[in-house]
Amino acid sequence: FLFNLMYGRYTQELGVYAKEEAARLRESGQRRSVSERSRALDLLEYDKGRCARCRICTVRCQKFLISRVGEDWIFLILLGLVMALVSWVMDFCIAICLQAQKWMYGGLDSNVLLQYLAWVTYPVVLITFSAGFTQILAPQAVGSGIPEMKTILRGVVLKEYLTFKTFVAKVIGLTCALGSGMPLGKEGPFVHVASLCAALLSKFMSLFGGIYENESRNIEMLAAACAVGVGCCFAAPIGGVLFSIEVTSTFFAVRNYWRGFFAATFSAFIFRVLAVWNRDEETITALFKTRFRLDFPFDLQELPAFAVIGIASGFGGALFVYLNRLIVQFMRKQKAINKFLMKKRLLYPALVTLLISTLTFPPGFGQFMAGKLTQSETLVTLLDNRTWAKQGIAEEFDYIGHSEAWKHPQVNVFVTLVLFIVMKFWMSALATTMPVPCGAFMPVFVIGAAFGRLVGESMAAWFPDGIHTDGTIYPIVPGGYAVVGAAALSGAVTHTVSTAVIVFELTGQISHILPVMIAVILANAVAQSLQPSLYDSIIRIKKLPYLPELGWGHHEKYNIRVEDIMVRDVRYITLNCCYRDLHNVLLTGNLKTLALVESAESMILLGSIERAQLQSLLSQQLGRPRRLEYIRERAAAEKKRLLVLSNTDNEDGNQRASHEVRFQISTEESSLTPTRPVPQKPLKPALKRTSVVERPTEIPTSKKDTLNYTHIQVSKQKTDEAVSKRKRRRFNRSGKSLSNDVEDDMTIREIAEWEEMQLDEQVNFNNCKIDPAPFQLVERTSLHKTHTIFSLLGLDHAYVTSIGRLIGVVSLKELRKAIEGSVTVKGVKVRPPLASFRDSGTSSSENEATELHKLWDRHRSMSLPREHTPSESDEKSQ
Amino acid sequence: FLFNLMYGRYTQELGVYAKEEAARLRESGQRRSVSERSRALDLLEYDKGRCARCRICTVRCQKFLISRVGEDWIFLILLGLVMALVSWVMDFCIAICLQAQKWMYGGLDSNVLLQYLAWVTYPVVLITFSAGFTQILAPQAVGSGIPEMKTILRGVVLKEYLTFKTFVAKVIGLTCALGSGMPLGKEGPFVHVASLCAALLSKFMSLFGGIYENESRNIEMLAAACAVGVGCCFAAPIGGVLFSIEVTSTFFAVRNYWRGFFAATFSAFIFRVLAVWNRDEETITALFKTRFRLDFPFDLQELPAFAVIGIASGFGGALFVYLNRLIVQFMRKQKAINKFLMKKRLLYPALVTLLISTLTFPPGFGQFMAGKLTQSETLVTLLDNRTWAKQGIAEEFDYIGHSEAWKHPQVNVFVTLVLFIVMKFWMSALATTMPVPCGAFMPVFVIGAAFGRLVGESMAAWFPDGIHTDGTIYPIVPGGYAVVGAAALSGAVTHTVSTAVIVFELTGQISHILPVMIAVILANAVAQSLQPSLYDSIIRIKKLPYLPELGWGHHEKYNIRVEDIMVRDVRYITLNCCYRDLHNVLLTGNLKTLALVESAESMILLGSIERAQLQSLLSQQLGRPRRLEYIRERAAAEKKRLLVLSNTDNEDGNQRASHEVRFQISTEESSLTPTRPVPQKPLKPALKRTSVVERPTEIPTSKKDTLNYTHIQVSKQKTDEAVSKRKRRRFNRSGKSLSNDVEDDMTIREIAEWEEMQLDEQVNFNNCKIDPAPFQLVERTSLHKTHTIFSLLGLDHAYVTSIGRLIGVVSLKELRKAIEGSVTVKGVKVRPPLASFRDSGTSSSENEATELHKLWDRHRSMSLPREHTPSESDEKSQ
Repeated sequence: FLFNLMYGRYTQELGVYAKEEAARLRESGQRRSVSERSRALDLLEYDKGRCARCRICTVRCQKFLISRVGEDWIFLILLGLVMALVSWVMDFCIAICLQAQKWMYGGLDSNVLLQYLAWVTYPVVLITFSAGFTQILAPQAVGSGIPEMKTILRGVVLKEYLTFKTFVAKVIGLTCALGSGMPLGKEGPFVHVASLCAALLSKFMSLFGGIYENESRNIEMLAAACAVGVGCCFAAPIGGVLFSIEVTSTFFAVRNYWRGFFAATFSAFIFRVLAVWNRDEETITALFKTRFRLDFPFDLQELPAFAVIGIASGFGGALFVYLNRLIVQFMRKQKAINKFLMKKRLLYPALVTLLISTLTFPPGFGQFMAGKLTQSETLVTLLDNRTWAKQGIAEEFDYIGHSEAWKHPQVNVFVTLVLFIVMKFWMSALATTMPVPCGAFMPVFVIGAAFGRLVGESMAAWFPDGIHTDGTIYPIVPGGYAVVGAAALSGAVTHTVSTAVIVFELTGQISHILPVMIAVILANAVAQSLQPSLYDSIIRIKKLPYLPELGWGHHEKYNIRVEDIMVRDVRYITLNCCYRDLHNVLLTGNLKTLALVESAESMILLGSIERAQLQSLLSQQLGRPRRLEYIRERAAAEKKRLLVLSNTDNEDGNQRASHEVRFQISTEESSLTPTRPVPQKPLKPALKRTSVVERPTEIPTSKKDTLNYTHIQVSKQKTDEAVSKRKRRRFNRSGKSLSNDVEDDMTIREIAEWEEMQLDEQVNFNNCKIDPAPFQLVERTSLHKTHTIFSLLGLDHAYVTSIGRLIGVVSLKELRKAIEGSVTVKGVKVRPPLASFRDSGTSSSENEATELHKLWDRHRSMSLPREHTPSESDEKSQ
Repeated sequence: FLFNLMYGRYTQELGVYAKEEAARLRESGQRRSVSERSRALDLLEYDKGRCARCRICTVRCQKFLISRVGEDWIFLILLGLVMALVSWVMDFCIAICLQAQKWMYGGLDSNVLLQYLAWVTYPVVLITFSAGFTQILAPQAVGSGIPEMKTILRGVVLKEYLTFKTFVAKVIGLTCALGSGMPLGKEGPFVHVASLCAALLSKFMSLFGGIYENESRNIEMLAAACAVGVGCCFAAPIGGVLFSIEVTSTFFAVRNYWRGFFAATFSAFIFRVLAVWNRDEETITALFKTRFRLDFPFDLQELPAFAVIGIASGFGGALFVYLNRLIVQFMRKQKAINKFLMKKRLLYPALVTLLISTLTFPPGFGQFMAGKLTQSETLVTLLDNRTWAKQGIAEEFDYIGHSEAWKHPQVNVFVTLVLFIVMKFWMSALATTMPVPCGAFMPVFVIGAAFGRLVGESMAAWFPDGIHTDGTIYPIVPGGYAVVGAAALSGAVTHTVSTAVIVFELTGQISHILPVMIAVILANAVAQSLQPSLYDSIIRIKKLPYLPELGWGHHEKYNIRVEDIMVRDVRYITLNCCYRDLHNVLLTGNLKTLALVESAESMILLGSIERAQLQSLLSQQLGRPRRLEYIRERAAAEKKRLLVLSNTDNEDGNQRASHEVRFQISTEESSLTPTRPVPQKPLKPALKRTSVVERPTEIPTSKKDTLNYTHIQVSKQKTDEAVSKRKRRRFNRSGKSLSNDVEDDMTIREIAEWEEMQLDEQVNFNNCKIDPAPFQLVERTSLHKTHTIFSLLGLDHAYVTSIGRLIGVVSLKELRKAIEGSVTVKGVKVRPPLASFRDSGTSSSENEATELHKLWDRHRSMSLPREHTPSESDEKSQ
């Protein structure tokens, strides 16, 4: 019971890259070593003293450094440095923005209305600017970016997501958005920013050559960059690495672990050193340092309270994700509102900002929810060492610094906390739907901290002298509860465990490790069984091409087989098909690759060909160059017939021609692809195979064409050697070099006729890159295993075969559908949509399945930009 | 440029398991749901009150609990609980052992000689007992177990490594070994113990049915168990998970992450709660709690010192690994010594223990290296908050508790530390080579801490008032240096970064995060470029079947292609081959599976068949049942001929016969295997193995035996029919249900003739399980990618094809050779052994390559137990 695998589209390209890379390296390596040696010899000859040896040594050291240490280290250090700088500068700007708002608000304390206007206008302007700027420069910069990074690391190429424009839009947009004081986070976008930075650095460094062109390496570097993003945002290298792994990867290569650690540590280090140099801090410490007592952090009997926090956070996290999705879907469904908002794209963020900032206006409702504190100030106060509700009476506690904001003369501190939690909850869920670069991690973190604080204060009020009974009195530390709550809620929303580590690194204390771990695990258990993670939810909303995870209880996945979900009418081409078949096949279906089978009867799968390859084959066959060829040939034949009638030895000419052709093909290829060392490769399979394949080369159905074609090529090369580069390039691209001495005098009708003729010719696969071993599964492969393989290898699709015979195809789409069908969002499990067909007969069910799939396909192709390739329409227009 | 994959042997089996599992689940699920529903209905009918509803509710809850929570949660909780108990009890016993030694040593303070005898005898006895006990009960329990777990998680089945015997031997052996006070660790063995525990629990729970038979799940559970092992050893859940991932995995499935976290957290929690319940601790805290100041943990200018610790630790770690290997290899090479020690297997550990305990004898040399402290006491003193060398004068510091041991009236504390480091270094390297269950992590950790302390004390002596210049005086904290040193050295030896996390969890403080991270990364960078990790080193020494990792600078891997390393003369069978070919093919080669090609001319790969399947095919064809069939058929024909001469249509009879045969086989299959669709499976090992056992049934060289054997069996069955299910089962196992109405009256010669006839028949593959899509690569797949795929999918071998044509095969063996050939241990890179053939012609090089490979194969099969399947030599001997 076995199956067969192939790397999908992306990995294919990757393979090509690796191959080219290898060839390049081999070549340059030889060249380099030769030049190195000669240089060394030169040096030795010139001055044979000690100096020469020194120089040789230096050269060798340099070489060693470049070859061994060079690439990755330098890249990661640069990445860490740049990201730390970006993070620090951004923090600095955000702080200034927030201070400016406070200053304005404070300066106008004579008039409440003016104060209100200042308080409200400032964020509205900033958010509107952020939304507008992002919209204009790069709409891809909107949102957190983690879902996109997850998709990209899965192997899908998302256009425009890793460009310089996006980088600028994201950085500036994010600074403005966070400077407005809305409940938005920096973490998610920072993952994106770091990836952008890595991609740009990669591009930049590939200018100097080296291994920067290798795509598999780029993926590794992107993974490291995600770690850097989290690491330098929170100065949490370990948590950053773990969080990025949990959030973006399905299978993680441990050998890339050190990259993430190295870069994230360096980045966090620089980030904190900048703070020291700026005299913000005395030395390198945690970002939100806590000072809980070390000797007795918590009592064993407090653990149930921590567990309660965990479970409640789990429900809260699920609710948050649900609320966030609800808002997005509501906004989409309400067409009237939607139309209006679409027209004025900036209106929605402005309105949301207005609402939120109105509610937090400190003299207004904000006084009941510590509205005047910024996010980080709030967090600092929540993690505070002291108990606010000492002795059960809220009024007595000693207000120091910002903690004062939580106190209200009339209202209990518990009420303030509850109000804060409730208001911030929906505000955050709402704010993160705005079309600005923003994340939800930090707001959720703060809400979690507030919830933890609430529980902690309640506990402190309940047990004023602590729970511990024997001997010393250890009062309860509500700050510890806040830490636990923060980790639990953020863990529940993101479905990660590593928020625990982030919390330790953020606070600089690990004493609450067990409560935090317990709460985070419980929160995850609850949240994961209720809702997808926030990032997966966004992936679904945005309909990004990503494979959902299998749930925790994925045992019924063994019941679904590939045969239940596969598409049975595969688009395929046969070895001996003609161009017309090719044309027809290209018009239908939308997969990136097409199966190549031996014949329609045997259906033995020989390989797969990329759609683009086929399209270029077709366009070569029908293109203008070939038509001109034809005209020229016709003219030549005319001429020949007229001039020399006697010495036509057809057979001899044929032979010569075929020789020429072969030679020409190989040279042409090598000139076209200097980096690809396999010119004969596409030829080989065809030659090796059944005789049908080889017809194009060996049975010259179009002898005339070839003959004339080569003839003209030579003449052309002789006559106009110095024709324009542009044209030649264009011609080269189409695979033929043309002489422009023939005029296109065919009428439309003639062209149509000619094209019909051309379409009836057999396809010549010689110049076509065939994937000789596409990924295969068998009918009885379980869904669980299919999922594993698809995730492991980053597949796009796989063929289903039965002893070599192609019987179906499974793509990401089918797999996703099957998984989502069996595990719905609510945790209620339904039967897989096609499982019922297994019991009934096969012939009828096949059709039904196909029909259903067609429906899905249609539906999908509407919504997914990726599936909708423009090629189809282009071909039609030809 | 693409390739094609197949799961190797282990994963194949896994696939079979999954399938069976699915079938079973489906069946039982349907059955259960039906019975469930009927039971619910029954209840409703009987008493239609509130009570019935309650009961239904209860039933449903129960069902829910069993189905959803049942499996993983319960398993992980049980695992965590058991391991925590084991860990705690073991710690308790070790503490008692150590106390007993101290007590004996303290009680005899009147006589130094007696004291010495007591001091030395005690550990010698314990270690000897440990070594002997382990040797007798389960020699697999020797050593750390992490290398073996790494190999097992890679998919290799190591026999006897996960049995109850090994568990007992490991636990008791480890307790004695650690109780002796030798510099040995608990961590590595605990990984093994936890895995053993998981395997046993799995077996135990599979008694209750459910998913515990699924092998892929078992691997996941083993991975979680490794995390539990580290987690409950150090009470470090996060570090445990990360360490176990780094040490045992190559590619890690993030979806299994939570298992590790959950189990490790629970285990660590219970482990620490036990300490609280035992009144050892007031509440749950870290194992080696430190009390460094929080506000200013270290100055920025101290970072170079931390970096120095990191780099030095890197060299030290590499040296440790080298030393350890050197000792092992020295002991192996010295044949004279070796012989002597082999005879008295317990002499070596006894001698080593004698040497080490003599040197640590407190009144003797031990006084200069704090010899009287146990390992954990040493660690506590080294992580001490206070500075020992205050004001640069060692004598002045305030001795409290165990720290006194470091003070010597004549000798400086620096000298004590240096002596400690040097002595413990070689002692630990030596002690870990003893054949007892032991790890090296903890000793290395302590040495690292001592080294850090040394640097810290030096810094404190150098800068008595701290480095920080403006304002407050912050004295240097040497304990922080000790933390950094411990993490760095243990990280260097194990090549992991997660020792940093372990250190934080062990000390309960995370304030030194940046120094620790920097030191660990530097140490890793140095150590990884000099030596393999300790575990990889042991894997090499023990010659375990494991794929080595690609080095850091693995760019030249792109230069090696599969075509350079593949074996070109693949054993294959063709679709239309006869049984004779099958027989011949089975006699040669040693791969687990054989390729099935369309024909020898086309060489189109259709699939692969397990060797065992072919053997059962062959034995079916030649077996006695078939022969009896033949006799019966012959008799029937005879009868028919005699009775009715008119209507004998020979062809019709033939047809019917063949129909009957087919029918019989199919029913037999269904009756024999309600759960397993491969009835021949139990046959497999016996057939695969030494043919001597099964020769009678199988291969016709010894026909006499067969005859007699079967004859006797039949007579026995006739005589004592009631004997026994046991024997009948044996018959059934051989795949045929016998009718005993025909007597085997063929002569030997007839049988030989019949068998020759049978061998010339075409093979009927109908009842043979063919893997329809074996894993394929193409010639130009790079070594790097091949390595990735093999590690990702846990492959054993892969076929190399060129557009469907089989041209070679690559197995783990070739891959390992290629990697080790290109990256030697010392970091010096040589050219891949076969790369030179690429430049020359193909036809000659192929042969050479094959020859070379044969040489390798021979060499390998000598050294690697796993590769050495007896089939080849045994088959030849026939």
